[in-house]
Amino acid sequence: MSQYKVIGTRPIRPDGADKVTGRAIYSADLQLNGLVHGKILRSPHAHANIKKIDTSAAEKLPGVVAVATAADLPDSQDKMADLGEGAVNLAHLACNVLAHKKALYRGHAVAAVAAINPHVAEEALKLIKVEYEVLPVVMDVLEAMKPEAPLLHPDVFTDSMGKKADKPSNVAVHLHFEVGDVDAAFKKADVVIEREFKTASVHQGYIEPHVCVALWNEDRRLTVWTSTQGSFAARAQVSEILQIPVSQVTVVPCEIGGGFGGKISVYLEPVAAILSRKSGRPVKMTMNRTEVFEGTGPTPGSFMRVKLGATKDGKLVAGEAWLAYDAGAFPGGMIGPGCMCVFSCYELADARVDGYDVLANKPKTQPYRAPGATQAAFACETIIDELAEKLGIDPIDLRLKNAAKEGTRRVDGPVYPKIGLVETLEAAKNSDHWKSKLEGPNRGRGIAAGFWFNIGLKSAAAANVNNDGTVTLIEGSTDIGGSRASIAMQLAETLGIAAEDVKPRVVDTDSVGYTDVTGGSRVTFATGLAAYRVGLDLQKQMCERAALLWECKPEDVECADGVYKNNGHSITFKELAGKLHHTGGAVVGRAAVDAAGPTNGFGVQIADVEVDPDTGKVTVLRYTVLQDAGKAIHPSYVEGQMQGGAVQGIGWALNEEYIFDREGRMENASYLDYRMPTSLDVPMIDTIIVEVANPAHPYGVRGVGETPIVTPPATMANAIYRATGVRMRELPMSPPRLWKAMQK
Amino acid sequence: MSQYKVIGTRPIRPDGADKVTGRAIYSADLQLNGLVHGKILRSPHAHANIKKIDTSAAEKLPGVVAVATAADLPDSQDKMADLGEGAVNLAHLACNVLAHKKALYRGHAVAAVAAINPHVAEEALKLIKVEYEVLPVVMDVLEAMKPEAPLLHPDVFTDSMGKKADKPSNVAVHLHFEVGDVDAAFKKADVVIEREFKTASVHQGYIEPHVCVALWNEDRRLTVWTSTQGSFAARAQVSEILQIPVSQVTVVPCEIGGGFGGKISVYLEPVAAILSRKSGRPVKMTMNRTEVFEGTGPTPGSFMRVKLGATKDGKLVAGEAWLAYDAGAFPGGMIGPGCMCVFSCYELADARVDGYDVLANKPKTQPYRAPGATQAAFACETIIDELAEKLGIDPIDLRLKNAAKEGTRRVDGPVYPKIGLVETLEAAKNSDHWKSKLEGPNRGRGIAAGFWFNIGLKSAAAANVNNDGTVTLIEGSTDIGGSRASIAMQLAETLGIAAEDVKPRVVDTDSVGYTDVTGGSRVTFATGLAAYRVGLDLQKQMCERAALLWECKPEDVECADGVYKNNGHSITFKELAGKLHHTGGAVVGRAAVDAAGPTNGFGVQIADVEVDPDTGKVTVLRYTVLQDAGKAIHPSYVEGQMQGGAVQGIGWALNEEYIFDREGRMENASYLDYRMPTSLDVPMIDTIIVEVANPAHPYGVRGVGETPIVTPPATMANAIYRATGVRMRELPMSPPRLWKAMQK
Repeated sequence: MSQYKVIGTRPIRPDGADKVTGRAIYSADLQLNGLVHGKILRSPHAHANIKKIDTSAAEKLPGVVAVATAADLPDSQDKMADLGEGAVNLAHLACNVLAHKKALYRGHAVAAVAAINPHVAEEALKLIKVEYEVLPVVMDVLEAMKPEAPLLHPDVFTDSMGKKADKPSNVAVHLHFEVGDVDAAFKKADVVIEREFKTASVHQGYIEPHVCVALWNEDRRLTVWTSTQGSFAARAQVSEILQIPVSQVTVVPCEIGGGFGGKISVYLEPVAAILSRKSGRPVKMTMNRTEVFEGTGPTPGSFMRVKLGATKDGKLVAGEAWLAYDAGAFPGGMIGPGCMCVFSCYELADARVDGYDVLANKPKTQPYRAPGATQAAFACETIIDELAEKLGIDPIDLRLKNAAKEGTRRVDGPVYPKIGLVETLEAAKNSDHWKSKLEGPNRGRGIAAGFWFNIGLKSAAAANVNNDGTVTLIEGSTDIGGSRASIAMQLAETLGIAAEDVKPRVVDTDSVGYTDVTGGSRVTFATGLAAYRVGLDLQKQMCERAALLWECKPEDVECADGVYKNNGHSITFKELAGKLHHTGGAVVGRAAVDAAGPTNGFGVQIADVEVDPDTGKVTVLRYTVLQDAGKAIHPSYVEGQMQGGAVQGIGWALNEEYIFDREGRMENASYLDYRMPTSLDVPMIDTIIVEVANPAHPYGVRGVGETPIVTPPATMANAIYRATGVRMRELPMSPPRLWKAMQK
Repeated sequence: MSQYKVIGTRPIRPDGADKVTGRAIYSADLQLNGLVHGKILRSPHAHANIKKIDTSAAEKLPGVVAVATAADLPDSQDKMADLGEGAVNLAHLACNVLAHKKALYRGHAVAAVAAINPHVAEEALKLIKVEYEVLPVVMDVLEAMKPEAPLLHPDVFTDSMGKKADKPSNVAVHLHFEVGDVDAAFKKADVVIEREFKTASVHQGYIEPHVCVALWNEDRRLTVWTSTQGSFAARAQVSEILQIPVSQVTVVPCEIGGGFGGKISVYLEPVAAILSRKSGRPVKMTMNRTEVFEGTGPTPGSFMRVKLGATKDGKLVAGEAWLAYDAGAFPGGMIGPGCMCVFSCYELADARVDGYDVLANKPKTQPYRAPGATQAAFACETIIDELAEKLGIDPIDLRLKNAAKEGTRRVDGPVYPKIGLVETLEAAKNSDHWKSKLEGPNRGRGIAAGFWFNIGLKSAAAANVNNDGTVTLIEGSTDIGGSRASIAMQLAETLGIAAEDVKPRVVDTDSVGYTDVTGGSRVTFATGLAAYRVGLDLQKQMCERAALLWECKPEDVECADGVYKNNGHSITFKELAGKLHHTGGAVVGRAAVDAAGPTNGFGVQIADVEVDPDTGKVTVLRYTVLQDAGKAIHPSYVEGQMQGGAVQGIGWALNEEYIFDREGRMENASYLDYRMPTSLDVPMIDTIIVEVANPAHPYGVRGVGETPIVTPPATMANAIYRATGVRMRELPMSPPRLWKAMQK
């Protein structure tokens, strides 16, 4: 029997009815009196100096109420702004929102128009005359690193680590981590495998495009309704870009149709704000799908060289990784996690990792679910598979032999606390899937492991007790994957009441304490911790009320399972709630945490595939995702995260990629041509939740959402190898590419 | 120099820009997808049995989406529901919302229709066939008390004091208060004056009519956007009438265009909820002005007999009052305060008060600014004036001689703590107005005193510190008269920051702790107290953060005037706020209070009038309002309350009245015919704020909003007497009535 009453159950999600009936309010649903519509003019060139922008004809078009260019943005110094999930260079952020002097990628925003309807706004865009000086384009990460490559940023800038480079180059950041004596260690190895890998740029593929509404009030207060992963992060960016105090900006987080890391950075919000300031009207801006692809951030493509050495008995002795990720037009920030995660599943006393964040004429890259880890794991985990084959060791056993555990030090420094990789590998070994036979031609089974560190960071919450015994919970974490439920359940558990009796509510930035982004797999962990602390705060006050009733000391009131007791008296939470009006009024609880991450999520995935020898098409026959969730608060949503991450990873593995022509034009900027998997492309994904409690959380929660996307490309490549004998080292392993490889 | 930095200053109101630019969202502004419009069918008879309602033809009209009658309301037991400002009988509340079996006044809601637009809804109303059995009507309070009068409620019900009567009658409540030996005391008097008074029903005259939008969600959650004085009171009523838990109902308080007591009871909200439940659509309902007059509550008309005895030297020795207030169609609740306030300005060791709440075929009465006190003060204060004249004593001196003070016991029981009547009378005596000469024919100067007890009750608040040093303040008190400012200022004062650095926000019932209605002059006092406590809570946490920075004990950090200090270290609130992200994350404060009222507001008013002998028209030449505010947080809003209350009282005194015909039809149900004073009818009202600190509030605040309406009818009657020699004892003192009296 579970030690919990609420945690581990599967109540109906609080926002379920609203979502399925269409009542949930997304930014696009917003109607305001006097609303006008904004549109963005985007650069047709992937690299060009902007000599002149003439907006006069557009301004004269009847129905146009405002036109904006980078000239309307205040000068941004080269300073770093903390957006909750890492710092960004403010000048770059502003320049990505509206190009200043240079267009750095095709689709880069150059100007904007607001008009009485979207059609007039589009007509007006055509009247804006931009004089470009077209520059040579660099698209490939290795090309961009060459000294003779066209430079995106002629100025030296402060990188995301706060450092200034020596001279301008397209290498925005170079990271280096090293432990032990790597060269000596490789000499001890009986087998050394070194391989090169390439992965394409892929998009997060959220369903809802970027949409926002901004209203710049007469008293200079700005309200922004937007689809964002972090209302406070959006507030910070808007306030920094526009150089107005955060208290002047209210961000109302509307429902969000997916983000996966792609809805942390702002794009439209500051532009809509300027158009609203200039027109005095609320401005709505909506991207179409092509704008989403061309104007917002994919996650990096990469070139990687990874080398592993092992002894005959399967002990890994040395590792080396050289990772170059394309940053897009501005420093990207995904290389750091790539370096952290490349060898993170294994004990490696001697290892070296070099990481390069490389500028290219592509949209600025953005996080995508475990950003940077999937690429690195693709490299490492396929080499592990090759090693297992070469050494004649079962791939699970090889991983178990070298698995990171409590006390293992990672190449980038941290020493793991209690983690669950061994337990997850063992669960895989004992799984029906692994134990079952896979028969038939052109079929193969692959396995791989994956890691994402998960963050903690800052969350606030508050709660109010209703006199019917229910509790409203105020939180600042935008709910993308069911976190209203998983946070409310933790409060319910703490108070000993039913899940249904907690009514969660995601509110705007004026109505809750500072809360970091919904990202980094932090929400159920950190905002959940805040909810737990709110519960303790409420409980303390409820004890005081019971003490008033019984004329005893509050500290003498015992509370367990939602029942308050003292000296023969006993009252339930619900009954006590009914007496609040007569014992001092409302009971309000609050908490703010800066939660200690990482929570270290490990996963293992198993894939059975069949490869069509005539076309190279890969069919997934069976797929199992195993993961250490610490403690699954709402198992359905944990399973949903595991399934969703795996499917996104399968898409990344098999089909997804940005296809650019020589001038940097994306040739497949629509969901017809950018091939994400649909429900017809994958089987039902099986899930096995492993629970190795996180000691840093009262209910043992670890982050869940990101780990499952780390493993699929490696898992699929390993399965494809077993089916075809071909080792694929480039993503996507699309039919033409795989077919070609199979022909060799 | 003031002891305060923020309190007593006059910052710009936080909602000012929104109000003057039309951006503020009132319920009528609300647009929701699929919105339909509801309309109410009202009884054309003031008293009738409802034999049958046939809605079938209306239901068939194209465009109609739902029809509702009382049959759609759950059976309401005869139980009392606590609405924050007094209990109400639930069956009566429900029956007032949709008539059940009987229509009790002309305009009583009988059925409702929702349709795709208001015009179709109106057409549909015409298709509803109601079979009435018309009953005899009783409109006058004395007539209604006669045994042979038509009975409104044949059943005996529980009155608002929780008592059941012996037998059915139109007397809903009889109250009796007595102290000392009244009959003996009267024998000691040298002068005894006994007079009879009549006052008409008057309306609160808010600008915005009743409007609401209700959305009954598929998951049975109900959201109501409405113009209300109390979001939690509205939630309680809706939940009680519909018999669903309060946690199933969210009330979003939109901006409110005046209430004055008339927007505490619900009318449209439960009906809109039912129409939404039946149609699956959000339903908007808006009253027109005639519906407001005929379908919502005026404040009671009255018949009063008051007797006072005094010795030659001006000592009041005995008082007796017999007050009968018309309740309208259901028990009213205003008679209690009437009894409390009739002699409340004076020390009277021997006094007796009888109060009757009397049913009549008029809309159910509702509170109107100091409900019940104005009528009673009209009676008492004109007799005091007559006594002063008879005894040859200055009317201020007579009042000073008998003025209530700390320790005075009121006839209904309470003993006053520190109060400011004497100080206010002395301020009147020393005022330029009182000391100036009034010359010319047909002119006269009147003076009167008034009292309202003011309530305390329950308020909650929360606050979040932004990293720019500003604070957002979450409150549940709907802002009618500038309370966002007056509450925010108290938090700013507590924290030692600028008024502009607190950003107040009135939120819905899910987002703040239980907060009683905006009424009873309680908000600046009680919600202000909550804001002060929130400030202390924030300050404690800020000290902890400073202690972290300086590695000292939190209790060793001193804080004064927004500066935190320890051992040579010093940091301002703003600087410390900037460090929150690195010292543990958000700082969130919260408080809930059940504030100890009453706060006892006393006022004195002086009027100079000129009466046109040919028409009886009264022109106000000069008018001064003096009042003990305890401490004026934002003096402009205190002055505004004093001016607004006085002007409403002048309207009540001179012109306002419900004019009914014999069948109970209101003949002046529009603002063209119901003569409220406009800016052309009154001079600029002078104000003198007296500040005798309330010991029960850290800044000394007393309630302010209601006291100023108590005095005008008596003040005006006394002034008219001095101008004409005619003692007016019936309201309104309209030109025809005054002219007639002047002819005698």
